[in-house]
Amino acid sequence: MMRIDPQSFETLVLQYQTRVNQTLDHWLPSELVHPIKLHKAMRYSVLAPGKRVRPILVYATASALGLELALVDGIAAALEIIHSYSLIHDDLPAMDDDDLRRGRATCHCAFDEATAILAGDALQALAFYVLSHDQSMTSDSSARLKMIEKLSLFSGSQGMAGGQAMDLAAVGRSLNIDELEVMHTHKTGALIRTCIQLTALSSSQLSSEKFEALDTYARSIGLSFQIQDDILDVVGDTQTLGKPQGSDMERDKPTFPSIIGLDASRDKALFLHHKAINALSIFDEEADILRYISAWFIERTH
Amino acid sequence: MMRIDPQSFETLVLQYQTRVNQTLDHWLPSELVHPIKLHKAMRYSVLAPGKRVRPILVYATASALGLELALVDGIAAALEIIHSYSLIHDDLPAMDDDDLRRGRATCHCAFDEATAILAGDALQALAFYVLSHDQSMTSDSSARLKMIEKLSLFSGSQGMAGGQAMDLAAVGRSLNIDELEVMHTHKTGALIRTCIQLTALSSSQLSSEKFEALDTYARSIGLSFQIQDDILDVVGDTQTLGKPQGSDMERDKPTFPSIIGLDASRDKALFLHHKAINALSIFDEEADILRYISAWFIERTH
Repeated sequence: MMRIDPQSFETLVLQYQTRVNQTLDHWLPSELVHPIKLHKAMRYSVLAPGKRVRPILVYATASALGLELALVDGIAAALEIIHSYSLIHDDLPAMDDDDLRRGRATCHCAFDEATAILAGDALQALAFYVLSHDQSMTSDSSARLKMIEKLSLFSGSQGMAGGQAMDLAAVGRSLNIDELEVMHTHKTGALIRTCIQLTALSSSQLSSEKFEALDTYARSIGLSFQIQDDILDVVGDTQTLGKPQGSDMERDKPTFPSIIGLDASRDKALFLHHKAINALSIFDEEADILRYISAWFIERTH
Repeated sequence: MMRIDPQSFETLVLQYQTRVNQTLDHWLPSELVHPIKLHKAMRYSVLAPGKRVRPILVYATASALGLELALVDGIAAALEIIHSYSLIHDDLPAMDDDDLRRGRATCHCAFDEATAILAGDALQALAFYVLSHDQSMTSDSSARLKMIEKLSLFSGSQGMAGGQAMDLAAVGRSLNIDELEVMHTHKTGALIRTCIQLTALSSSQLSSEKFEALDTYARSIGLSFQIQDDILDVVGDTQTLGKPQGSDMERDKPTFPSIIGLDASRDKALFLHHKAINALSIFDEEADILRYISAWFIERTH
């Protein structure tokens, strides 16, 4: 069933990355406009060489649903902007206290702590600005409102920000596997679901059955992505990762390998991959790109 | 022309404060829901005894425009939530490093720094959730989108967050009066304009002439409010203010009194009050409450 080979996938990913980088460059405030330092910090963090996983998911879902990519440029950008703001704040001294991110000095190291806090704050606002302002997105205002509702819910205290709070509370404590899953479902999973749900909301004719299938897919790959992240913290290397290998262990953070071991973690990731593939069974080959992404999530080395 | 006496104004203010406090309580996440500490911090900061200046402005403007107050409950709450998030982040050690706010320990002192950062982040998301989700607001989805666009623009890097960045950059430097005005136009003024513009967007039949008049009013009182804040930092007392008197001076922050002196600051506030009153001349007595608020802003003692 898979029609996508590694090379065509890489070409697609590169195309999606280029596309979102151009969109981000368009929406980010100019470094020539005051306050200059704040705008520099925002651009520095967002335009750092990230994998662009969330925009890739947005474009791949749009492609699976037969949507014009221009219709979801704003969604791809908004999600990457929210993700970038969360990285800036997570890296702060009071949070994970990280110096290295995407192969560069973290925002508070390259600038200063106050600027990093404000850059994150302003980026969150920018994401909502893009979703409410972008003229290329669906002209269905109530669908747009629904997107904003979902993004605000999934990035707030009962989504991404709540997951980070659970993560910090877990340092040095022993969690069981269920508690770890709940934490990651919030911290990483919520935003991955948002990518797919917002893209689905751009389609005026999607059945609720297909919407649910995509959401099950999103839940599964959101968790498998995180498990692979935890595995890479054990077996990866700092240069490939762009952040220090072993930092979770060093910080005494509970991870999938630390709770259930490496082998069981790999099994769990594979199980979730199969669950994601099963969820997509009501789609034909148009969803092959999504199937490929699920495999990529658990096979990636950075 | 003024039909409002001090007592009826106080009764109205109390009514507005009670109304927004109930609305905030409704929208804030329960302390019984995980992550509990984060939700406690959010409620602690938002439900602290603040003046509720922004909700008061929202309700007063709605009243001047003959709108049902229920139509703007979501706007009043969203604005107070955004204001609260900005206070939490402004008080952080890396920013203004304040211990006292609204007569209580600041969020990072009562909880911890990481929780304060996340509480602010989650509150920002919550404000957008309220504006996109509240069923009592206008059913005109495109007006709702416009509100979200304005809030995101006025609270972001070219609004409130940008103003805070300019404020931090100004510590220990000498600004001229124009630079100080630009900073405050962003830091405080933008959100005050948002209160009035979002309320105006709830009215389907407001002329652009009246919209512009209200915006001029908002710009004027946004600045006079800040000038009075600066004056109170010199002449107020800590207990009435709920925050340390003299903290701007101590921190070597440029203020209106430090640049043009106390008397000229008072003159400037009075001039802005007159400008605000003039802007309202196309309204009849229905705008008396707004006229009274302008006077209150420059006469208040806390």
